[in-house]
Amino acid sequence: MEYILSDRVQTLKPSAIREIFKYAADPTVVSLSAGNPAPEAFPVDAIREISAKIFEENPIAALQYSVTEGYAPLRKAVGDYMKKTHNIGRDFDDLIITSGAQQVMDLITKSMVNEGDTVICEAPSFIGSLNSFRSYNARLCGIPLESDGMNLELLEKALQTEKNVRFIYIIANFQNPSGVTTSLEKRKKIYELAKKYNVMILEDNPYGDLRISGENIPSIKSFDEDGIVAYAGSFSKVLSPGMRLGYVIAPKTVVQKMIVCKQGEDVHTNIWAQMVAHKFMTEYDFDGHLAKLREIYRKKANFCMDLLDKYIVPNKITYQRIDGGLFIWCKLPDGVDMADFCKQAVLRKVCVVPGNAFLTDEKEQCSSFRINFSTPTDEQLEKGIKILGELAKEIL
Amino acid sequence: MEYILSDRVQTLKPSAIREIFKYAADPTVVSLSAGNPAPEAFPVDAIREISAKIFEENPIAALQYSVTEGYAPLRKAVGDYMKKTHNIGRDFDDLIITSGAQQVMDLITKSMVNEGDTVICEAPSFIGSLNSFRSYNARLCGIPLESDGMNLELLEKALQTEKNVRFIYIIANFQNPSGVTTSLEKRKKIYELAKKYNVMILEDNPYGDLRISGENIPSIKSFDEDGIVAYAGSFSKVLSPGMRLGYVIAPKTVVQKMIVCKQGEDVHTNIWAQMVAHKFMTEYDFDGHLAKLREIYRKKANFCMDLLDKYIVPNKITYQRIDGGLFIWCKLPDGVDMADFCKQAVLRKVCVVPGNAFLTDEKEQCSSFRINFSTPTDEQLEKGIKILGELAKEIL
Repeated sequence: MEYILSDRVQTLKPSAIREIFKYAADPTVVSLSAGNPAPEAFPVDAIREISAKIFEENPIAALQYSVTEGYAPLRKAVGDYMKKTHNIGRDFDDLIITSGAQQVMDLITKSMVNEGDTVICEAPSFIGSLNSFRSYNARLCGIPLESDGMNLELLEKALQTEKNVRFIYIIANFQNPSGVTTSLEKRKKIYELAKKYNVMILEDNPYGDLRISGENIPSIKSFDEDGIVAYAGSFSKVLSPGMRLGYVIAPKTVVQKMIVCKQGEDVHTNIWAQMVAHKFMTEYDFDGHLAKLREIYRKKANFCMDLLDKYIVPNKITYQRIDGGLFIWCKLPDGVDMADFCKQAVLRKVCVVPGNAFLTDEKEQCSSFRINFSTPTDEQLEKGIKILGELAKEIL
Repeated sequence: MEYILSDRVQTLKPSAIREIFKYAADPTVVSLSAGNPAPEAFPVDAIREISAKIFEENPIAALQYSVTEGYAPLRKAVGDYMKKTHNIGRDFDDLIITSGAQQVMDLITKSMVNEGDTVICEAPSFIGSLNSFRSYNARLCGIPLESDGMNLELLEKALQTEKNVRFIYIIANFQNPSGVTTSLEKRKKIYELAKKYNVMILEDNPYGDLRISGENIPSIKSFDEDGIVAYAGSFSKVLSPGMRLGYVIAPKTVVQKMIVCKQGEDVHTNIWAQMVAHKFMTEYDFDGHLAKLREIYRKKANFCMDLLDKYIVPNKITYQRIDGGLFIWCKLPDGVDMADFCKQAVLRKVCVVPGNAFLTDEKEQCSSFRINFSTPTDEQLEKGIKILGELAKEIL
């Protein structure tokens, strides 16, 4: 049979990162290409204890169908926490639980973007979100990132010239892949521009709790008095990614449609996971856990940056220091063939992610690659970065 | 701000069943409107035991990111089981784990259906699936169900006249809402028609293991030597719906695109649930558990049908006896206002689902309603059906 596929998936490809994972599965290869939280960051004992308690006290509720919006006590716990600690959420907003923040990207696109409509995003940006937008045949318009966030002139130009722009997608803290944190000044200006041009903002904040230096910067959603920002949060980096738990805080009109779409996608999110997260947030020391995570990642990030300074930077690869998150963005000298560099690295058994994977058009020129420091052990990290340094020394 | 929503969600409404659930939440109301498995059908002790073991032996694997296709041991266990017990799956097929069978409906529509393309379905059919198709702006073409499956003449006519038909959606066993089981003869003819007109079949089989009488009928997928059938399976009725676990067995070309779409929707399905299901299938008496479920539902279904015969049928409401599943489809005399009957029932504190909720066009005339016997207790069932009988006696 000749299989007829929809237009929207004709050009959709598996994430380039996935392809690299195939090499990374080789145990002799040092993978700096993943984005997994450090295994020591999981509160295993707490989850074991909570899970046992749930199956002792309330097993049927943990196994039965539940409501699409999410487990009510978790919705309340997250809502209260975000309001109290981040000033996020107004009366015009609603909060629902999703199957990872990835599902927020999907549901909001499904609810707001017609085929051919435009989504503005940072360039580079998180490939998982870009693919989600692409899967609805959205047109992607990438705005170059500077060291403090998007280039605002180009953003305003895009808002003026692009047709049917439905939202601006932004990861304001420790962006994936660039590590860039958008400054408070730029956050405010982006908000004003969105308001001026009557366009929503989709603020994705998976790494916000993982700040390792500097002061917290208020999220864009925290100054949303106009109901123009949808905020995507995630439990993947602060509890467990395997649970697939995220949430969205956005104006009710939008959330109502997202709920209807979610009903047709997966009915609701795994209820056991929602009950675990609720108990972890309300009966355990959640803030203490976050502080512990920051300590883990502070050590790992600083160790990684020290290695980069020792082995790589002298060999002409540069990077911008990060204040949090899981990734460092390394730039090769102009004119160097980045794809070839990454390929040579694989041959020496080190995997990194070629930067063009994160562009709205993968064929565009890019001289950067992404490394991750949360997944590898310290030994693997040192081995991998040393090899990258040797490679750079030889071919640059 | 004026929120601009996509065309596909403009007319998409929350499921009518959801709206009815609002009444059903009133504890004084007897709800015959749900579709939840009976609480006594959950293997609580086994799940408690397996979950504890996982968090003892392998906690990181249960909490870390996993692969989009699903947990490899579960994929193998399901594949082997379906091949051995149902002759489902050929070399050209692949199997992936999904977040409930609901996600199969979503992913296959996303992968194969352009806006405006046609999906043929049974009329009536499961509203969750219809809404999933609708959410991609598919055109729905309903083929009237007879007591042994779709009207084949009308099916062939639709295949001849409808434009861009992408698949035929069918629940062959104990259909929701009608309870109808498609005969072997009709299954074969539907397969031949799909082949003749070069159209896929999406066979959804959430209730297949819940047969309470008669002989098993081979699934359409079991005679798929041409690679034209996608089979959706579910753990919701045989393990736990709250876990959100389903799977699809379909030709590789289609499954490959579904994987890419799933990546953008939820990355992967909750991994703890996949590990639990794997251990339950391979280390426990899975077939014995299914036999126990059939016994539970046999008792409940027969009890319900006895009540219908006692209180309802003499009052002019008719129904077709079922061989399995969770639902009974009750028909009012022609000319009676079904919506009004359901409303009167709610006023007397009994909830049923108005039949038009399951039509491709909810405004079409329908004289049936759906009742469920798996969720209510025996006492609730008797109370509810007795009230329906009294109502029928008074107003019919």
